[in-house]
Amino acid sequence: MVESITTELQNYLGSDKVLTGDAVQERYHHIWRMNEPLRAKAVIIPQTTRDVATALKICNDYNQPVVPHGGLTNLVGSTETSSEEVVISMEKMNAIEEVDESSRTMTVQAGAILERVQLAAKEKNLLFPLNFGAKGSAQIGGAISTNAGGLRVVKFGMTRNLVLGLETVLADGTIISSLKKIIKDNSAYDLKQLFIGSEGTLGIITKAVLKLVEAPKSRVSAFIGLNHYDKVVELLKFMDSALAGTLSGFELMWQPTYMGLTSPPMIKPPLPYDYNYYVLMEALGGNDEPDQQRLLELLEEATKSGMIEDAVPAFSGSDLDWFWRIREEVDPIVDQCNHEQQFDISLPIGLIGAVVDGIVENLYTLKEIEKVFAFGHVADGNIHFIIGKNNDSKELIEKINEVVYSPLEEIGGSVSAEHGIGVHKKAYLHLSRNPEEIALMKTLKTSLDPKGILNPGKVLDI
Amino acid sequence: MVESITTELQNYLGSDKVLTGDAVQERYHHIWRMNEPLRAKAVIIPQTTRDVATALKICNDYNQPVVPHGGLTNLVGSTETSSEEVVISMEKMNAIEEVDESSRTMTVQAGAILERVQLAAKEKNLLFPLNFGAKGSAQIGGAISTNAGGLRVVKFGMTRNLVLGLETVLADGTIISSLKKIIKDNSAYDLKQLFIGSEGTLGIITKAVLKLVEAPKSRVSAFIGLNHYDKVVELLKFMDSALAGTLSGFELMWQPTYMGLTSPPMIKPPLPYDYNYYVLMEALGGNDEPDQQRLLELLEEATKSGMIEDAVPAFSGSDLDWFWRIREEVDPIVDQCNHEQQFDISLPIGLIGAVVDGIVENLYTLKEIEKVFAFGHVADGNIHFIIGKNNDSKELIEKINEVVYSPLEEIGGSVSAEHGIGVHKKAYLHLSRNPEEIALMKTLKTSLDPKGILNPGKVLDI
Repeated sequence: MVESITTELQNYLGSDKVLTGDAVQERYHHIWRMNEPLRAKAVIIPQTTRDVATALKICNDYNQPVVPHGGLTNLVGSTETSSEEVVISMEKMNAIEEVDESSRTMTVQAGAILERVQLAAKEKNLLFPLNFGAKGSAQIGGAISTNAGGLRVVKFGMTRNLVLGLETVLADGTIISSLKKIIKDNSAYDLKQLFIGSEGTLGIITKAVLKLVEAPKSRVSAFIGLNHYDKVVELLKFMDSALAGTLSGFELMWQPTYMGLTSPPMIKPPLPYDYNYYVLMEALGGNDEPDQQRLLELLEEATKSGMIEDAVPAFSGSDLDWFWRIREEVDPIVDQCNHEQQFDISLPIGLIGAVVDGIVENLYTLKEIEKVFAFGHVADGNIHFIIGKNNDSKELIEKINEVVYSPLEEIGGSVSAEHGIGVHKKAYLHLSRNPEEIALMKTLKTSLDPKGILNPGKVLDI
Repeated sequence: MVESITTELQNYLGSDKVLTGDAVQERYHHIWRMNEPLRAKAVIIPQTTRDVATALKICNDYNQPVVPHGGLTNLVGSTETSSEEVVISMEKMNAIEEVDESSRTMTVQAGAILERVQLAAKEKNLLFPLNFGAKGSAQIGGAISTNAGGLRVVKFGMTRNLVLGLETVLADGTIISSLKKIIKDNSAYDLKQLFIGSEGTLGIITKAVLKLVEAPKSRVSAFIGLNHYDKVVELLKFMDSALAGTLSGFELMWQPTYMGLTSPPMIKPPLPYDYNYYVLMEALGGNDEPDQQRLLELLEEATKSGMIEDAVPAFSGSDLDWFWRIREEVDPIVDQCNHEQQFDISLPIGLIGAVVDGIVENLYTLKEIEKVFAFGHVADGNIHFIIGKNNDSKELIEKINEVVYSPLEEIGGSVSAEHGIGVHKKAYLHLSRNPEEIALMKTLKTSLDPKGILNPGKVLDI
């Protein structure tokens, strides 16, 4: 059987597109695990949508499980494989097919690297707003299949909001192609929504039409110190209202995180360590000088009214880089952890202050916990934890999961705001989704992929 | 069988919730057809989600077709019934359950009227941005099930973008409830997307958590005259870039439409009738005086550079009302039509000028055509036509459909940008969606509603 399917794949696709044996071993399943050789029966490297369709048709006929590989940057084990699985890697379908300036769209193949997509937009004085740390490796198809978030969701939404058209191949090789460059389409069901965020379990994305926006003409930022969580919410509402659609970032760091991310003299802290909360905000506007002036006025107003304790703006490129590097480069806190565990939870904005305090307090009752760093996209209700601990045992992982996840069900939160479920969070899905929802998800999975060949064991247990 | 299902519904729900006989006749299937008595076996008026679930379970057991009724304002026949169908009308499930100012969410029952939702947000100094002419009758559940658009999609997106949580009842009575007040949730499949825009064919929406935004503090507008479509696109890009997220409306009227909508002395035209195109734009900002100043500067810049021919701003409440009444109240052009036919197409922004010219030219080759009015949400690539003709024959309707729809397939447009498919556009769905897409839609319909009881014959022929 092993020979027969790889042979058939090679016959139909050409042997250069189907790696086996040692050539598989030279690959890996995650960008951070490049020292662990990939386990897989074969790796298919399609060059066209037709190749993907042919590969899936054969795999479906053979009941052959398939794991799609993009940039391998996901954080929940979605690209893990077993030696009996076949990988389809989108790396060669990486063309940027068209940037349309009047439609403000870009048509891309799924394997295009996010950073290249951003640059192609920039060349036409447009912006593809999706942005996150792994942009140099992440492929757009992976970003779509995980509905990636990032730093500017408050202004531009998640990846779902940035996809106008999609081409996907179903488990049986059927190509579902809808690559229209239109913003509105209410002609029956919006099928692309099924494939966005389903982590390759319902189809393999091959192409997309992305929504672009006009490139911003100004960028202003400020670090702000506050002492009460209620004031953070007040500031968010105040800034969002006054900036009226230009607010593009509103990040919160708890004091220990801010302290951990700044370490003078290497990384100078923009504000002293005197406050309980640090907000890093950004606005992308259309008018440089007045936008700077406006931010200064608003900071002054917020200070006078007692909403904030302290603030420092950034207008120049070097100041903006300095401020945002603090938020984006989490190595200084990861380096403080002997072993680390990361979280990506979602909860109603008003409850974040108290819930996070409770979680931190409960975590520190565990003797194995050394550090708790909390921060996140507070305007989106999305909080990340990086937790330092003295061992990496399964038992401790589960204990920590229990502490972080247990408040979420009752308050209507989510165990995954951005990263997805993959394999690592599957055991906790029931905290975010009720049995009826999970049953309906399984109905969808079964009707689109009756043999269960697409990324099996990820997201749901069927 | 007729007795038996209505009796069973009355037994389980109480007879006050199940209208039959004359009580059915006193109702109607569309707000514009109040003189045509409703044809239906019974009308169920649920008061709770549990009532909807009970009703659907019974109907499903009896293979009883069900048509959901909201505010009955849709334009594609989605609420039409036969005498053998049972109507479920959401009118009594109209509570606004909660407005949460810090989460910036509103939890509502499906039968809440859009205008009441808007007002409830306003009372808390927040905005529910969805807005269209029928807001005084349309119910939020209907707006969600049709993914309604409207006048401010360029800034706030379609209804889909404004729904955070949803509760829906499936055909078999299963309640799929996910009423979380969170912005991001990547915990497995985003099931609500299935029900948004599927016109009641996959489930009946009972509640929703809506996304609110901070109420805008300033509103500015301008009427602008231009002579070439390329300049319209140039102006859109220029304004969108300069206004950087505050641009909230960018409507285009072809000259005959502008002329038809303004009729001095009743409705004074803000600009003379000298130009080929009229743009009505709006920005919702955070800072009254400077926002007005900014618009004036931009209009001056656009005039100097030759982008636009003429412009007049509106800042006061009365001027804003005057300008926007011209766009929103289409009666003056409808009144010029002996018989009318309306369209709601979507196409790539760059192609609109040439394609609309072609359609208008081809329409006027039909001798039955008297008037063609073109206008629309050009920033969304969404154009409406109101066509005046001398008769209302089926043959002529089809001839006109042919002229308007035929260019769309090749250029990747859509026969419905906003209104949906219902029954009226079903014959043209194949121009927007290919056979593979339609087959997949049918797979979804069959797996969620195996007996096909939900709004049968709407959207798809199964």
